[in-house]
Amino acid sequence: MKHQIVLASASPRRKELLEQIGLSFTVQAADGEEKCEARLPQKQVEELSLHKAAEVAGKAENNAVVIGADTLVFFRGKPLGKPRNEQEAALMLKALQGQTHQVYTGVTLIWRQGGSMRQMSFHERTDVTVWPMTEEEIEEYVRSGEPMDKAGAYGIQGLFARFIRRIEGDYNNVVGLPVGRLYQEMKQEGLLDGADAVRAGL
Amino acid sequence: MKHQIVLASASPRRKELLEQIGLSFTVQAADGEEKCEARLPQKQVEELSLHKAAEVAGKAENNAVVIGADTLVFFRGKPLGKPRNEQEAALMLKALQGQTHQVYTGVTLIWRQGGSMRQMSFHERTDVTVWPMTEEEIEEYVRSGEPMDKAGAYGIQGLFARFIRRIEGDYNNVVGLPVGRLYQEMKQEGLLDGADAVRAGL
Repeated sequence: MKHQIVLASASPRRKELLEQIGLSFTVQAADGEEKCEARLPQKQVEELSLHKAAEVAGKAENNAVVIGADTLVFFRGKPLGKPRNEQEAALMLKALQGQTHQVYTGVTLIWRQGGSMRQMSFHERTDVTVWPMTEEEIEEYVRSGEPMDKAGAYGIQGLFARFIRRIEGDYNNVVGLPVGRLYQEMKQEGLLDGADAVRAGL
Repeated sequence: MKHQIVLASASPRRKELLEQIGLSFTVQAADGEEKCEARLPQKQVEELSLHKAAEVAGKAENNAVVIGADTLVFFRGKPLGKPRNEQEAALMLKALQGQTHQVYTGVTLIWRQGGSMRQMSFHERTDVTVWPMTEEEIEEYVRSGEPMDKAGAYGIQGLFARFIRRIEGDYNNVVGLPVGRLYQEMKQEGLLDGADAVRAGL
């Protein structure tokens, strides 16, 4: 059966990444449950991604494979969400500058096979090292507006590239969706078909 | 003295990266000398970047700071350039799949200070690990046309993201310009000024 891919996320960055690897899909944003019981970073992001995927899978077509994803930034084991204001953004950046932190994205796939629902979750971890930043650089960056809708108060794919020293792991995982691993898992589960093959001239 | 930044490269990817970090600059493409004497990867890319920067610096304005860059892919110590045809692209991808290889970008800055010319070169190395690829995936990817103008026959920022397992180092270095390190070196040398500061709303 041909699967229709549904991305359960309103994030324009996740949409761009799925487009980049040449998949056809539709978007059905999930509100997501912000709370979760898990303690370990990898369990937290997997659980949050499951909430999002399940929410959309409940109302999806029979032939759908739903992708949910959640990204969190961890510094010394503590999660950094999206900053609520400029002061909070500046505080997060003061913590991250000159240090290495962890970015986790959890991904859950839900689809029907035969008569039953199937589900699988995985996560990717990327270590990100940030150059030292002056107070002035932090203030300027906060004023740019880029930090405000992003976990950890920075966008690796934006202006903040000037402050990224190195990473270990998957870059796209930091942007919000580990498309390499996602593609491999979907291939493994037989969820890709000819229509998802490389499009000439893309 | 305010410096006018000149990028000595016709690569649209390098142009995008410099724009991404919010710098104002002009482009003056260098032909570049393809041959170099150096043996070590880091010396090769630095030497090639120097050729490009010097070519443009010779005809540049007095207040210019010229940026030259060269990117090479190395597999088991041997450089992989741009494939000359589809067969060569497929051979390169067959070598790289399932393995880890090295990407080096060398960067040279040339500018005037007082009456004299100043120059500095550096390089960044990134290790890239590629997922195993089937023959069919390699053929499809070659047919997409993406490999043909790229060292190592792949574009990490394109469709090939589905085959990237992980990296160690700077991602933008693989795209073609290590803008994090470049920004830090320019700051160190006093080559950035207020006009290069973060632009609000970028």
